[in-house]
Amino acid sequence: MSQSIAANPDRLLPADPGTRRIARELLQRVQDLPIISPHGHVDAAVIEQNTPFPDPAALLVSPDHYVTRLIHASGVPLDRLRESNTAAPDSRAVWREFCKAWPLFEGTASGYWLRTQFRNVFGLEGELSEATADASYEAIAAKLQEPGFRPRELFKDFNIEVLATTDDPLDSLASHKAIAQDPTFHGRVLPTFRPDAYLNIAHPAWSANVDRLIAAAGDGGTGYGAYLTALENRRNYFVEHGAVSADHGVRTPATLKLDDADAARLFERARSGKASAQDRDDFEAHMMYQMARMSVEDGLVMTIHPGSYRNHHEPTFNTFGADTGHDIPFAINYTEAIRPVLQDFGTAKDFHLVLFTLDETVFSRELAPLAGFYPSVYLGAPWWFLDAPDAMLRFRSAVTETAGFSRSSGFIDDTRAFCSIPARHDASRRIEASFLARLVAEHRVSEDRAHELIVDIVDGSPRRVFKL
Amino acid sequence: MSQSIAANPDRLLPADPGTRRIARELLQRVQDLPIISPHGHVDAAVIEQNTPFPDPAALLVSPDHYVTRLIHASGVPLDRLRESNTAAPDSRAVWREFCKAWPLFEGTASGYWLRTQFRNVFGLEGELSEATADASYEAIAAKLQEPGFRPRELFKDFNIEVLATTDDPLDSLASHKAIAQDPTFHGRVLPTFRPDAYLNIAHPAWSANVDRLIAAAGDGGTGYGAYLTALENRRNYFVEHGAVSADHGVRTPATLKLDDADAARLFERARSGKASAQDRDDFEAHMMYQMARMSVEDGLVMTIHPGSYRNHHEPTFNTFGADTGHDIPFAINYTEAIRPVLQDFGTAKDFHLVLFTLDETVFSRELAPLAGFYPSVYLGAPWWFLDAPDAMLRFRSAVTETAGFSRSSGFIDDTRAFCSIPARHDASRRIEASFLARLVAEHRVSEDRAHELIVDIVDGSPRRVFKL
Amino acid sequence: MSQSIAANPDRLLPADPGTRRIARELLQRVQDLPIISPHGHVDAAVIEQNTPFPDPAALLVSPDHYVTRLIHASGVPLDRLRESNTAAPDSRAVWREFCKAWPLFEGTASGYWLRTQFRNVFGLEGELSEATADASYEAIAAKLQEPGFRPRELFKDFNIEVLATTDDPLDSLASHKAIAQDPTFHGRVLPTFRPDAYLNIAHPAWSANVDRLIAAAGDGGTGYGAYLTALENRRNYFVEHGAVSADHGVRTPATLKLDDADAARLFERARSGKASAQDRDDFEAHMMYQMARMSVEDGLVMTIHPGSYRNHHEPTFNTFGADTGHDIPFAINYTEAIRPVLQDFGTAKDFHLVLFTLDETVFSRELAPLAGFYPSVYLGAPWWFLDAPDAMLRFRSAVTETAGFSRSSGFIDDTRAFCSIPARHDASRRIEASFLARLVAEHRVSEDRAHELIVDIVDGSPRRVFKL
Repeated sequence: MSQSIAANPDRLLPADPGTRRIARELLQRVQDLPIISPHGHVDAAVIEQNTPFPDPAALLVSPDHYVTRLIHASGVPLDRLRESNTAAPDSRAVWREFCKAWPLFEGTASGYWLRTQFRNVFGLEGELSEATADASYEAIAAKLQEPGFRPRELFKDFNIEVLATTDDPLDSLASHKAIAQDPTFHGRVLPTFRPDAYLNIAHPAWSANVDRLIAAAGDGGTGYGAYLTALENRRNYFVEHGAVSADHGVRTPATLKLDDADAARLFERARSGKASAQDRDDFEAHMMYQMARMSVEDGLVMTIHPGSYRNHHEPTFNTFGADTGHDIPFAINYTEAIRPVLQDFGTAKDFHLVLFTLDETVFSRELAPLAGFYPSVYLGAPWWFLDAPDAMLRFRSAVTETAGFSRSSGFIDDTRAFCSIPARHDASRRIEASFLARLVAEHRVSEDRAHELIVDIVDGSPRRVFKL
Repeated sequence: MSQSIAANPDRLLPADPGTRRIARELLQRVQDLPIISPHGHVDAAVIEQNTPFPDPAALLVSPDHYVTRLIHASGVPLDRLRESNTAAPDSRAVWREFCKAWPLFEGTASGYWLRTQFRNVFGLEGELSEATADASYEAIAAKLQEPGFRPRELFKDFNIEVLATTDDPLDSLASHKAIAQDPTFHGRVLPTFRPDAYLNIAHPAWSANVDRLIAAAGDGGTGYGAYLTALENRRNYFVEHGAVSADHGVRTPATLKLDDADAARLFERARSGKASAQDRDDFEAHMMYQMARMSVEDGLVMTIHPGSYRNHHEPTFNTFGADTGHDIPFAINYTEAIRPVLQDFGTAKDFHLVLFTLDETVFSRELAPLAGFYPSVYLGAPWWFLDAPDAMLRFRSAVTETAGFSRSSGFIDDTRAFCSIPARHDASRRIEASFLARLVAEHRVSEDRAHELIVDIVDGSPRRVFKL
Repeated sequence: MSQSIAANPDRLLPADPGTRRIARELLQRVQDLPIISPHGHVDAAVIEQNTPFPDPAALLVSPDHYVTRLIHASGVPLDRLRESNTAAPDSRAVWREFCKAWPLFEGTASGYWLRTQFRNVFGLEGELSEATADASYEAIAAKLQEPGFRPRELFKDFNIEVLATTDDPLDSLASHKAIAQDPTFHGRVLPTFRPDAYLNIAHPAWSANVDRLIAAAGDGGTGYGAYLTALENRRNYFVEHGAVSADHGVRTPATLKLDDADAARLFERARSGKASAQDRDDFEAHMMYQMARMSVEDGLVMTIHPGSYRNHHEPTFNTFGADTGHDIPFAINYTEAIRPVLQDFGTAKDFHLVLFTLDETVFSRELAPLAGFYPSVYLGAPWWFLDAPDAMLRFRSAVTETAGFSRSSGFIDDTRAFCSIPARHDASRRIEASFLARLVAEHRVSEDRAHELIVDIVDGSPRRVFKL
């Protein structure tokens, strides 16, 4: 293994020496601040039970669609990388495939996170290679057995202050409760209300989900009224257990205000299996409006993640399920789509609506103008495919001149890869320092003010936007 | 107040020392050239009457939607910043809100313009702050009483040679006439024909406007024919009073050629209040075609500003009116939309059609290819949300490789904030110098040639494109 | 003539001295590698017959729509630059127009290629100018008479290893055969199957083309079945004569799988002139699906070039024909459009599908995510208006963080301007070096690895993706 570039203290900082000096000092201001992660996909049970992580492949490769997708693109069948509905690959074999494929990750965001983890979490000094696959597997596997590498110990080591999970509306939140009541653990692990499978008629389990929802929380009622009541009740349950936000993974950002009778009619038509495609779109858009209304009432921050064509390759979905690397973004518009919600709630007191996009064109065209007027609207951080150094710089460049720095959500890691959390937040901080350093070097922001801004971006924004 | 970065002579120039040296020299070539402002929203009466500007808040904050929008986004109700239809806020209180909100403007284009004005127009040496709000108010208010700070004196001080206003087709242009006939004033203040409210059926006053138009200039006729005649007559009136362009703020860039009978039928249907949404779109598109036809005949440069969802937040519109910060861009296409006009007039002698966009994606995809073929088409400068350092650099990068430098309109400040004019043109010149300096540093343009180009970009292009 | 910047060894490299040093060394690694040109529009007969090129204007100006379009935009009628359907301009007069217009090309990609040719192919030491138009004409004309400037000699001088042409499906490929059988010529000149005019019902000659196709290669059959057979036969003929790819210039990237009976019905309706606009779209989309199916079977790499509104200005088309500078891009989407093909063939063994775009927004949003999952999908290099230094850097920045370096097609010159081939490939190599140098300077890729990557990008990728 040759020396890893993850060791370089100037990684991701701009090449120009004068700008780099400024960036370095800005970075120092925030490098040791605690991690606040208000949106992600780590399972609370992992923290609660604190059982050691499984082997390197099961931790770092197989479940991570960022990783398996690119290896798959190079021609390796997915069943050699992750579990299918009939078999699971051998971890050592997966790891060997991964090490062989490691050069594919040059220049990618995933490669950056992985390399940083290998060095900074697992202490590997060099680069992965096919030749050393078994050695690196064993080195990481050994670490994973050490007491210091259990989830709670890493949580502390990583300096995480807040970690939000993503949860089914009917989840008991038992793990969250147990963590909150444990006096020996000091981090905050917060649930997030994620009701997609209860709102989207096209979801295969929608009607069954609605049955369970109404039975569990409908206050004994039936129909559309009980459905809304049950959603409200479950949101309140989440609030009581520390939730600060409700997250919505929708196909498009469409919103629509229907009157109660029309909404009830659509609901009943869907329940009897007779909803048309238009009915489905209208109902989902209407339920986004309802979610906004409930957020105004119960205070949960509303986050919207639209614009991904889920499960683009049906054969892969049939064999490997969802979240296996073939969700593909498409063009969206927010200006017209989100207007019904903003007409009624755009200036509502304490309503926070965080808008994410995978379509970069809306950053300067729609999101910065929206967030630069509506008190309720915040710019979601560059997400998923855009959570990468150049893309994050493009985001800042696209939005700042219109909306400044105060209208952004703060960094969102959105990850199920627990060990990548420090690398992701570190990368974000380096990019914020790089962007601000350029503005300082171009005499657009004073150096003093930039030092205040970076602290607010890294620490103030997520606390303020997510009401932490 | 700490030292303002507006004092730095290298502001906005690139950080790399070698490139900055080149940029500095390019900037020197154009820094003292007169300001040519072929499109903006200053009221000619302000210049004609030369009355002192009101207080700092009424001059710099309340009427400027760039400024009030971002303060509003931070949670300050608009009635504490600008006049509603029932009340007007106290100027000193507005100024205090503004000073308190000043940090929000870090990194924004508005912040840059304001900071530059504070120092270079009003002589404030430091940064605004809440603590010094009253002091800065008084300092600016005192200046505004000095004879040197009246509009005509500033006009000269700002080195403005041409300033175009934006005017209603039925405006008498009395102020323009008075200015033109005043031998003591040497600037050119030109009217611009802006007929939106007479062309767009959806405009609430359309039919009343058409009545007035036909009565005033229809040569005694009625109906569609008299309507066209009246428009032609008023355009000629504008030409006689120095106008060089007609400006069109349309929802989309759609154009359509209807035959006279069909157009007349649509016109009558609209006059009787029976136009459908499709009728409205068709008629507006057809009238864009007619405006192009008239421009070919009378020589007025045609400028099109599409792609903004006007008055996005209805409650704000109802209380505060139009142009109050909630116009939000959306995606547009020009390639298909503008084709009917270009089929017939794309190579028409001396027809100049300047196409603006708030959707950056059309710069490289559509506008540069169109302007790089059609002699009539010019690239409108980055406008509104895009009139900002990074956005202007993105524009140059997006269009130059296809269309070179000769097909751009030259800088357009589009402002109603008179005192911001020098700062805006200065920022544009700095960015042009920065872009060219990079091309020189990368040996893509010779330094000698870059010196010629920047003079042509700043001074030659607007004169040529706007026939000045 | 002043000293040409084409002489500078650092041209196109980044300005920052440290990054430039890295870029220089990367460039050295690939500067002398042979040129592989897997997609372009040079006529094979030019190489076969090896007749001297005509005069400078007929070689470098009149047939090149990149060049004539910008001169046309400046107000020079096209008939003074290229042949119309009634007359041809005098070459010396064309050259004078070109020299006069030369300053328009500052900052454009075409200007860069031309300047590089003038110096590096024709040995002109200075800049073109109107004053020296006759002298530069004569200097180039004299060179074109020298034996070393005939096509085969230049082919060798340019260090071209592979040159693909673009050919009609019924082309005899006689020139390709003659070249392949000539033991004195060592380059590979490969045909490319380009069936647009046989697939697109809207093409004016479609039905006549289909007649000829079925007659020539339909195995005696008739109707839709014979049509498919004939296409398969001609593809096989191309494969036998060295073709490695089939190229598709379509309006949109739509694909559609129809069953045989429906497809046959559409075919017959189109043959009898009764196809609706929807029928045409469906049939073309279906034939794209069929082309993919055939590529899976016969191994031809499938390349798709969509998103250009061809012949935007009808009067120009009527007088000067196609490819005369007024094809204008528009917005496209791939995610939904290409799905039918990817559902069935996205993981098919050895199927290579190279997706091009003129709409930059799809690079990060759709193409990188698609190519980063599907083994069959490759990112087409920035093409046409995007084949330019800044646009190529934007491409790399947009796609690399998601898809790495392994999923790109390698550079495509797509040119009919034979003498521009070295300049275009050289520009591409300089930009790849510049992009990688920045990643090295930012410690995102190690210098050693960057040296391997650039060789793979320039040499490995086109060989691998185009099966050379």
